[in-house]
Amino acid sequence: MSYIKRPQDIEIRSFEIIEEEMGEKAKEFSSTHLPIVKRVIHTTADFEYADLLEISEGAVESCLEALKKGGKIYCDTNMIANGLSKITLDKYGYSAYSLVSDKDVAAEAKERGVTRSIVGIEHAAKDPNTDIYLIGNAPTALFRLKELIDSGEVQKPALIVGVPVGFVGAAESKEILPGSGIPYIIVKGRKGGSPVAVSILHGILYQLHKREGF
Amino acid sequence: MSYIKRPQDIEIRSFEIIEEEMGEKAKEFSSTHLPIVKRVIHTTADFEYADLLEISEGAVESCLEALKKGGKIYCDTNMIANGLSKITLDKYGYSAYSLVSDKDVAAEAKERGVTRSIVGIEHAAKDPNTDIYLIGNAPTALFRLKELIDSGEVQKPALIVGVPVGFVGAAESKEILPGSGIPYIIVKGRKGGSPVAVSILHGILYQLHKREGF
Repeated sequence: MSYIKRPQDIEIRSFEIIEEEMGEKAKEFSSTHLPIVKRVIHTTADFEYADLLEISEGAVESCLEALKKGGKIYCDTNMIANGLSKITLDKYGYSAYSLVSDKDVAAEAKERGVTRSIVGIEHAAKDPNTDIYLIGNAPTALFRLKELIDSGEVQKPALIVGVPVGFVGAAESKEILPGSGIPYIIVKGRKGGSPVAVSILHGILYQLHKREGF
Repeated sequence: MSYIKRPQDIEIRSFEIIEEEMGEKAKEFSSTHLPIVKRVIHTTADFEYADLLEISEGAVESCLEALKKGGKIYCDTNMIANGLSKITLDKYGYSAYSLVSDKDVAAEAKERGVTRSIVGIEHAAKDPNTDIYLIGNAPTALFRLKELIDSGEVQKPALIVGVPVGFVGAAESKEILPGSGIPYIIVKGRKGGSPVAVSILHGILYQLHKREGF
């Protein structure tokens, strides 16, 4: 059977197709935003994301600055933490983690009758090295994180990627970020998810990678 | 801030919304197929999946029979292997694994100039306990698996979930399953992905879970 087997050829051809099909739409995005949009479309095969993604002014730059300093990325799912390129993160002294399956977190969540996502993000936010948040699943994690920032218990992070997918609270949770002064990237409405969160961070990470000539 | 914090309430309400919005469309699916369709929509917030999912006759039953015997599920991404409910799989003596990040697989792929997905699935297919395949990313994995089955090197598995997402080969790779005699579940066209693969298996797994009164 004849099919493209070389991974680099597949990736290059995929991005060519995305650019062709985006057409004029691609011109609406800046040179730092377009790679993010294209990577999300690459991951989802869903061009609607070009209309749904919203990137706050300076969010990409804020994330790039943070990446240069090293730190931790909190992910609200294990899928995100495992999906990020460990090799690339290692180069910047970054690590990604999730507490959603942590035993203590699960026990506390059960006791309090709240989601593990709420308890997980509370624990993560206490760690001053955690300055990037990738929320791809739980609106409750995003609501709680915003509460903690608003109350001053947690300092403003370098970036919140707020892309919970779903039908209960997902769309609403993302609406709390615009106007908050927090650097953010969101997907408006119900769509999003763990692979979308991963691809957004990769869309930023690979820009740095490229600039530094790796 | 007021938002639903109890995880079980969120899940129940989500499925109610999905059922409401599916309307008449829900009646097109059998009682074993509908939970799969609803779970995929729950994961993606994308109702288009109701039109894109194709489940071969007897595929769900074939998977349910396999699950009762115990075995292994090969996943073409770590995201799938990590996203599956370990607690539920354990109950059926099943384990999920991926070889895509395996060092030997990576070295062999580099040497041969093919994707790690091809080499990974070749190794997995040699294991007679592996009888369910979840392919959410790599068309090359699906093409190669089909070649191995066609040539008789590998016996027909209990189920192939073929949902690679993407622009190069993804749609084509899924077209090789209909008419093959292999029990399959596919997403027609470009869409799909790791969370879709996970939600399809969960949509089957939870049916068994329910029947057995867990």
